Amino acid sequence: MKAPSSRAYSFRLALENLYRGVTLYRVHCLRNFSSFVARTNTCGELRSAHVGQKVTLYGWIQYQRQGLFLVLRDFQGLTQIIIPQDEARSHVKELLSSAPVESVVRVTGVVSLRPPGQENPKMPTGDIEVKVETAEVLNSCKKLPFEIKDFIKKSEALRMQYRYLDLRSFQLQYNLRLRSQIVMRMREYLCNLHGFVDVETPTLFKRTPGGAKEFLVPSREAGKFYSLPQSPQQFKQLLMVGGLDRYFQVARCYRDEGSRPDRQPEFTQIDIEMSFVDQNGIQRLIEGLLQYSWPEDRSPVTTPFPSMTYEEALADYGTDKPDTRFGMKIVDISDFSQRLGIHFVQNALSYPHGTVKAICIPQGMVSDIFTYSVRFMPDGSLKSLLTKFLGQEQQSELIQELKMQVDDVVLLAAGEHKRCSALGSLRLESADLLEAAGLVLRDPAVFHFLWVVDFPLFLPKEDNPTELESAHHPFTAPHPSDTSLLYSDPTKVRSQHYDLVLNGSEVGGGSIRIHNAELQRFVLEKVLKEDSEVLSHLLDALEFGAPPHGGIALGLDRLISLIVGAQSIRDVIAFPKSFRGRDLMGNAPDYVTAEELEPYHIQVSWPVAEAEAKKN
Amino acid sequence: MKAPSSRAYSFRLALENLYRGVTLYRVHCLRNFSSFVARTNTCGELRSAHVGQKVTLYGWIQYQRQGLFLVLRDFQGLTQIIIPQDEARSHVKELLSSAPVESVVRVTGVVSLRPPGQENPKMPTGDIEVKVETAEVLNSCKKLPFEIKDFIKKSEALRMQYRYLDLRSFQLQYNLRLRSQIVMRMREYLCNLHGFVDVETPTLFKRTPGGAKEFLVPSREAGKFYSLPQSPQQFKQLLMVGGLDRYFQVARCYRDEGSRPDRQPEFTQIDIEMSFVDQNGIQRLIEGLLQYSWPEDRSPVTTPFPSMTYEEALADYGTDKPDTRFGMKIVDISDFSQRLGIHFVQNALSYPHGTVKAICIPQGMVSDIFTYSVRFMPDGSLKSLLTKFLGQEQQSELIQELKMQVDDVVLLAAGEHKRCSALGSLRLESADLLEAAGLVLRDPAVFHFLWVVDFPLFLPKEDNPTELESAHHPFTAPHPSDTSLLYSDPTKVRSQHYDLVLNGSEVGGGSIRIHNAELQRFVLEKVLKEDSEVLSHLLDALEFGAPPHGGIALGLDRLISLIVGAQSIRDVIAFPKSFRGRDLMGNAPDYVTAEELEPYHIQVSWPVAEAEAKKN
Repeated sequence: MKAPSSRAYSFRLALENLYRGVTLYRVHCLRNFSSFVARTNTCGELRSAHVGQKVTLYGWIQYQRQGLFLVLRDFQGLTQIIIPQDEARSHVKELLSSAPVESVVRVTGVVSLRPPGQENPKMPTGDIEVKVETAEVLNSCKKLPFEIKDFIKKSEALRMQYRYLDLRSFQLQYNLRLRSQIVMRMREYLCNLHGFVDVETPTLFKRTPGGAKEFLVPSREAGKFYSLPQSPQQFKQLLMVGGLDRYFQVARCYRDEGSRPDRQPEFTQIDIEMSFVDQNGIQRLIEGLLQYSWPEDRSPVTTPFPSMTYEEALADYGTDKPDTRFGMKIVDISDFSQRLGIHFVQNALSYPHGTVKAICIPQGMVSDIFTYSVRFMPDGSLKSLLTKFLGQEQQSELIQELKMQVDDVVLLAAGEHKRCSALGSLRLESADLLEAAGLVLRDPAVFHFLWVVDFPLFLPKEDNPTELESAHHPFTAPHPSDTSLLYSDPTKVRSQHYDLVLNGSEVGGGSIRIHNAELQRFVLEKVLKEDSEVLSHLLDALEFGAPPHGGIALGLDRLISLIVGAQSIRDVIAFPKSFRGRDLMGNAPDYVTAEELEPYHIQVSWPVAEAEAKKN
Repeated sequence: MKAPSSRAYSFRLALENLYRGVTLYRVHCLRNFSSFVARTNTCGELRSAHVGQKVTLYGWIQYQRQGLFLVLRDFQGLTQIIIPQDEARSHVKELLSSAPVESVVRVTGVVSLRPPGQENPKMPTGDIEVKVETAEVLNSCKKLPFEIKDFIKKSEALRMQYRYLDLRSFQLQYNLRLRSQIVMRMREYLCNLHGFVDVETPTLFKRTPGGAKEFLVPSREAGKFYSLPQSPQQFKQLLMVGGLDRYFQVARCYRDEGSRPDRQPEFTQIDIEMSFVDQNGIQRLIEGLLQYSWPEDRSPVTTPFPSMTYEEALADYGTDKPDTRFGMKIVDISDFSQRLGIHFVQNALSYPHGTVKAICIPQGMVSDIFTYSVRFMPDGSLKSLLTKFLGQEQQSELIQELKMQVDDVVLLAAGEHKRCSALGSLRLESADLLEAAGLVLRDPAVFHFLWVVDFPLFLPKEDNPTELESAHHPFTAPHPSDTSLLYSDPTKVRSQHYDLVLNGSEVGGGSIRIHNAELQRFVLEKVLKEDSEVLSHLLDALEFGAPPHGGIALGLDRLISLIVGAQSIRDVIAFPKSFRGRDLMGNAPDYVTAEELEPYHIQVSWPVAEAEAKKN
């Protein structure tokens, strides 16, 4: 065993995808990957400078050819190993040439330069090879259900069942290691640079009002249940009341939504709360956090991030999480349309929120899909089912209003719409169609962060629009300019909530909280008509000198998946659940015996069909 | 709002207990506690070097006297604030002198030297005071259920109910901040120095064999339950099979033990696993980890830690977690006793494990409790109920055997004992008695780490001693020297398990794991007679080239509580549960409606008495 301090070399975390010849990620630091073990080096580390050294490597057999050489793989890379051909080492040859692919071996040998012309410039260790002297098969591998390198092509169910094999892939190794690195950098920023305290909060708590999506955990007291919270919201506010001043936690959260694509029943958020802070303070903190922890191999992010109000986002993009990597904004052409004198258009405009809106799709004519729209033809005319209603002058006016170019296509929508969500969806679908036709609108290497602010504090309930519910949660503070409206017209009150959007996905959200007990009670009881008893501990706490405070939570799984360009958050989680919430490797959830339920005073109510089946 | 980079001063995290005049903890670093907020300084920071500066502080009113001055407190310390007495600022005086204690205020003013003779050398800010110009009461505090400084004297139930007030105490601020610091240092050591990857593993999994203490979480599939695991054991081993090489996680774990003093239903462990490592490697890693993260204000730990076998620990200390801060080892005096020819002693010795053992309690005569024992009188004789059986020569022999000094007391035990747990308990109780009588045996400022190794792999089941169960868990590898015994006499097999003991408390445990599928199957099916089907995913995984691996888990709550000298782990957890597993602040667990249980296909089976009560 070697002392760790003596071997603190400068290493590189270089994960090489040999098949694509791409180096995915490098970070230079004083990191010793071989401390406390008997290897001298990792499989990604040897260079021509090591020639002549006797080394011991551990790894998996990636490939073996005719008893002549093999490629050994570990988390850091690949090394070519030359199998000895002399009689004296025939047992080593026998051992290594008969070991199945993916067996795990130890080899000891001498680093040599590859013969001239046989170097592999695509491989970081491509200048050298290791001439084996001794070897040991530490564990043999039985026949694989597939080859590791082809894994990505296999069905996701198969990959989830054999997750421990999928984890050996370069892509998952990269994703998980990058995730670890980013979180570590975030911790350094928060903890070491800005005095935040990492505080763990309970996950066995109780139902929050409206917490219909919370998992229940039966306790040993009959009829009483814990609940797995969706976030540490209450606890982080109580920590501020407790004078912790600056809190963060990489917090496990739970949400039972049944089957939802690309959602996980348990997920992780970077959870932050500060005392004496305003919206601007939180936003600058988060910008600094992301800039500090941003991976070196990604195009950098610039700060401050642009900001947009909720109203602007809906008006211009038809969504509260606009993808600002491309234009195609929604344009209100109600005035223009009014003047056209077309009956059905004017009819649509006569309603309370009646408008005519349009998006202009640059180069839209590359896709055949946009047939029933207004197209700007090379001859300078517009072509559309609507054209017959448009005079020459009106055509020019529309072209100017929408800044149309030749080959552009315009989509129009008329009706009673306030939020333009239909055009917002059309905008994204149009982008998909254009990209399918070969145009690049959204470069995956580009990162557009955006703050969306000034959300409404309350929204009409979907099932009963005469009642109000919190747009986010009942602890969100009203916008200072709108406080008086709270008592007269709560629907008009804007909140101090802010969302962080990255490339059209919501990656975070937070708010300045209510710190005044009276205001909090008014919101809960008078506006939301909720029973405040269940929150009495929080209301009490606000009365004991609660400081003004605010915070934010970043969705870590989503953020990392966007950074690495993963299709799904499942690709940045070591052991994800299927979209039905199942662990396909370990087969969870699973049946338990009635005996095991007894201490918790519960029994299963079998659905009729299943109960019948059990009887027969 | 100030740019954070421009204010990265060198600050001190100095938590001062003014009442005791003790500075508890300091760490010097580039840490900006005032970034992103409007304060210029914290309340612990101002010194004579700041005199003349205009500052803005936020904090709680700790104390206010006659409208003349007040003491403002935040997480970092206390500052004396001089209330203006001039007419022009009478509103400021009015505001500050009428605000109740524990109200939260902003003050802006100028730093001045205190008048000569009025400095307070016990207070880090004791050279200065702040002459207030403007002030604002941000939130008023209603009458407290107790004073913060007296809180420690209040009942624990009251403190738990008002946990957010208890958190304002210097002691809890210190404990939680130190915990955060230590964990951060551990992360730096593991992640940045030794290439460990922080991987999050699921907490919604399924029952493990023998997992009778696992909480259940009902799923939306009738009759199927998740389980909250007691540790990430299976996942960390699967990560090694997946080639992650070095894993760690600050892992939330769950254990439902009903009511147990000083246990929590959820707790945290530093969870570690490495590939290609042996016992020695893990031990050196952990020694380095603890040394690196050890707080500066505690007496340092020296490495390597001493090591002791399980057999030695039981023989010498009567426990597998010896407190080695003091002597009083158990001595086997069977041979000597045999020669005494006392009938009942010889009778005891005639049984298979019959022994006579003794501990010598130095200065034991300071306590009256040890009446019925052998005492070494100042006149050189022994005094005991046994003395009549001992001749002069035998007395001398016993004095020599046990190295007795005048005033020492010897406790004897004769019987069929292999583990000496009775004498082990007596040893600790004797230490309590001696300390109660004024002797210091166990200096709380001294830290004795100890490895205990060579545990048995299996133990007879308590309820059926003819069957075996794992001494720790079924994945523990046998000692290499004992592998063949596995097939002939499994009770004699030692394991590659190791425990880490600190001052007589177990603070960690781990092992080298079985990486061979065949051996793992043999242990599960043939030795433990368990159904291996439920672990089929792990057995499968071992067949696909699993590397040799091992790991450890440190109990973070216990470790931190020992470091800070807390009476209970509840003092190092922000929101602990009571010993009945209840959250006394938020009232969890709580009743839920039958409607809320419906999606989970469960119903409550009310105990008869409660069901009757509900009917009436």
